[in-house]
Amino acid sequence: MLPAEAQAHAVRKSDFTAAIQALGARLGHKVVTAQAVREQHANITTYLPNEAPDAVVFAESVEDVQATLALCRDHRMPVIPFGTGTSLEGHVNAPRGGVSLDLSRMNRILHVHGEDLDCVIEPGVTRKRLNEDLRDQGLFFPIDPGADASLGGMVSTRASGTNAVRYGTMKDNVLALKVVLPNGDLITTSRRARKTSAGYDLTRLFVGAEGTLGVITEITLRLYGIPESITAGVCPFPTIGDACNAVIETIQSGIPVARIELLDEMQVRASNAYAKLGLPETPHLFLEFHGTTAGAREQAERFAEIATENAGGPFHWAEKPEDRTRLWQARHDAYWSVLPLRPGAKAVATDVCVPLSRLAECVMETKRDIEETGLIAPIVGHVGDGNFHTTLMVDVDDPADMAKAKAFMSRMVERALAMDGTCTGEHGVGEGKMKYLAAEHGEETLDAMRALKRAFDPLNIMNPGKIVSV
Amino acid sequence: MLPAEAQAHAVRKSDFTAAIQALGARLGHKVVTAQAVREQHANITTYLPNEAPDAVVFAESVEDVQATLALCRDHRMPVIPFGTGTSLEGHVNAPRGGVSLDLSRMNRILHVHGEDLDCVIEPGVTRKRLNEDLRDQGLFFPIDPGADASLGGMVSTRASGTNAVRYGTMKDNVLALKVVLPNGDLITTSRRARKTSAGYDLTRLFVGAEGTLGVITEITLRLYGIPESITAGVCPFPTIGDACNAVIETIQSGIPVARIELLDEMQVRASNAYAKLGLPETPHLFLEFHGTTAGAREQAERFAEIATENAGGPFHWAEKPEDRTRLWQARHDAYWSVLPLRPGAKAVATDVCVPLSRLAECVMETKRDIEETGLIAPIVGHVGDGNFHTTLMVDVDDPADMAKAKAFMSRMVERALAMDGTCTGEHGVGEGKMKYLAAEHGEETLDAMRALKRAFDPLNIMNPGKIVSV
Repeated sequence: MLPAEAQAHAVRKSDFTAAIQALGARLGHKVVTAQAVREQHANITTYLPNEAPDAVVFAESVEDVQATLALCRDHRMPVIPFGTGTSLEGHVNAPRGGVSLDLSRMNRILHVHGEDLDCVIEPGVTRKRLNEDLRDQGLFFPIDPGADASLGGMVSTRASGTNAVRYGTMKDNVLALKVVLPNGDLITTSRRARKTSAGYDLTRLFVGAEGTLGVITEITLRLYGIPESITAGVCPFPTIGDACNAVIETIQSGIPVARIELLDEMQVRASNAYAKLGLPETPHLFLEFHGTTAGAREQAERFAEIATENAGGPFHWAEKPEDRTRLWQARHDAYWSVLPLRPGAKAVATDVCVPLSRLAECVMETKRDIEETGLIAPIVGHVGDGNFHTTLMVDVDDPADMAKAKAFMSRMVERALAMDGTCTGEHGVGEGKMKYLAAEHGEETLDAMRALKRAFDPLNIMNPGKIVSV
Repeated sequence: MLPAEAQAHAVRKSDFTAAIQALGARLGHKVVTAQAVREQHANITTYLPNEAPDAVVFAESVEDVQATLALCRDHRMPVIPFGTGTSLEGHVNAPRGGVSLDLSRMNRILHVHGEDLDCVIEPGVTRKRLNEDLRDQGLFFPIDPGADASLGGMVSTRASGTNAVRYGTMKDNVLALKVVLPNGDLITTSRRARKTSAGYDLTRLFVGAEGTLGVITEITLRLYGIPESITAGVCPFPTIGDACNAVIETIQSGIPVARIELLDEMQVRASNAYAKLGLPETPHLFLEFHGTTAGAREQAERFAEIATENAGGPFHWAEKPEDRTRLWQARHDAYWSVLPLRPGAKAVATDVCVPLSRLAECVMETKRDIEETGLIAPIVGHVGDGNFHTTLMVDVDDPADMAKAKAFMSRMVERALAMDGTCTGEHGVGEGKMKYLAAEHGEETLDAMRALKRAFDPLNIMNPGKIVSV
């Protein structure tokens, strides 16, 4: 166990029996202590151990959130905000016990301001439900992590996804938040105006804070009009390097591509089997272009030229909406599609992000490492941002297999850091990536993060043992 | 004097003679105490009094910044980072005395990574020089406040300008910062990767912090390729309401306009006289479209249709690059052009920002208020974001005139807040807008901002008496 992991686990768990009883007395049936429910509310997505909370509170209102925090303050009991539990680095684990604060019942869409291209929602709304609700009004919210995550969770992990190259990440698409702070105060971080210079950017402070600074109870999001024309397609390449070079040229030439996703040949093989795509089993880019009818077509044609110059092609259009939907469903199902590659193994997803000019090099070295290590680990990526993932098929009960996987993940991060990249482009830190933060940021920067954490959460009750453990 | 202003001024100024001597012994000729230089380093742009620092330090390196902060810590002496002094709300004033830390000599462009569309610069680089340097490489940095401000200042006020509707504000275009903290630590807030989820967003914390949390010594900025085609033009409207309604429809219909600027008839009159534009003296929109040749033209044609539907037009193209340059130069010179409207008076610029759907209403009510109050105050605005400015021509030595102007500015802010807007879209808080923050954010939010300030600057030496005075 590496130092940061060891540290997170070294803190002795307290006995919160009395505190949980007090919570039950206050919140009744909203407090659940059944083991199965508690375990569902800890990490279930990766190799990290499942560290269950002592209880789960199903909050139905801001008052429930405030009541929970008040009791947690009184008892110095950890509280871990929970959305759908689809985060990938153990964000929802309870290494020091305490309460998982499940916000999935706070799932109202409060206002859709079509004229202002924004909406106000509760944190438990999931991204698919939001878009289903918006579709009739010709609007959409572009951020799409693989899972049907809650918007509160997406704010908290600074999520992005396939559209980020065009529409940005959660950082760029949250206008304002309501947050209950550890001290009980309910604050509003900003107004609905598109921009402001009125003080510290508290909005961006809570985006990516992983529930360590407060509990988000309301979110104002930017929305976009559904484009007049959406053109999608797939393009094969002889090598992953050629595909990456085509991506670099596409972005540098200013084509406002909406999606540009890399799938290596192993992922294509898996997706062919899972979603019957019938693609040639070489590296592919999946693309989408948004604009006017003429504009989207012009973008696609320019990309096709760049692909040809990089030994790729031909570019196959997905003309019909149902073909397009099938394509992106297959992309979003990448996680599920790889499971049959090694029956019985667990899929462990990890991500890094590098400056675009280093993308081809970083992906190719990672690919070589996978082959040399003898791992089953397809590569997919939101490559327009320099962000890519490996999905490692690991037997988590086999210490030798786990050691091999962990060593590979560390090398993947070291490689990204050496190229001025980051240890995580979009999955977040949680427990899994704490050990890399010092190398990425330096101790002085972590001290600044710790000062910030202490300022907001002096009792250290908010999701302790995550990001910078204090 | 309103409570927040009174509070800022109530703190007794200390005698920093010994501290300034120690600074001189350490930094020699870089420390200047001549009165003229000190006064140039305090507010010179508005009605706010000029509150000069006790000395000016012209920093030439990170070491100079750290040495200055060390002495300021020892002597509990305020230090106020200074770029070009073009901020508009008294940000650079020294109400409690201390040192103005002039960063204009730290003006090197350290790296331009054309392949990654980013650059690394020192904070004293100004936006015009940066763009002159980038032009040969086919790149540009879009954020353009009226003045030729330093990038360090633009980060610190969360500046935006005419291109923000398409390219965002400083918040969206800073990838990473190096910052000397009040404790002397030099931190790096992020890597060059386009996106990251690796911990708290310290970058965005310093964007808009107005020098109250630390001193920025290096900036990594996003850059953009100069578009293949740039189309600009002007469009007259019979009323300011019609112009605003055309803006609202343009944005809602998803036209990716690069610039959409409102000038009311008084501003058009002033700009005609100053820049010989020869426009009919009615409200106008100045516009620019970026894209492929076909794409930019298609955008302009669509806008022209929307203008016609809103009683505006005809849309006049500025076909030649020199016509386009003249147009935008005139727009950027708006501040200077209004000075002849009332010889001897000072131009006091103030801004608010509202959700787009309230823009027409807010601008029209403000216009009516200007007329009823009998002020000379042209309206200009980055209206695609819901952001607009009034430039009040005020005799700052006439208490009755000042009282009238101040009361008007307060009503302008109250009107914006009542429409879910903000007291400042891009100018910042400084001293001038502190009094509105409680109404905008609520006391609990200001308490959170104060906690943040104390965490980073426990000795309260960084630009004290600004934003949330602690």
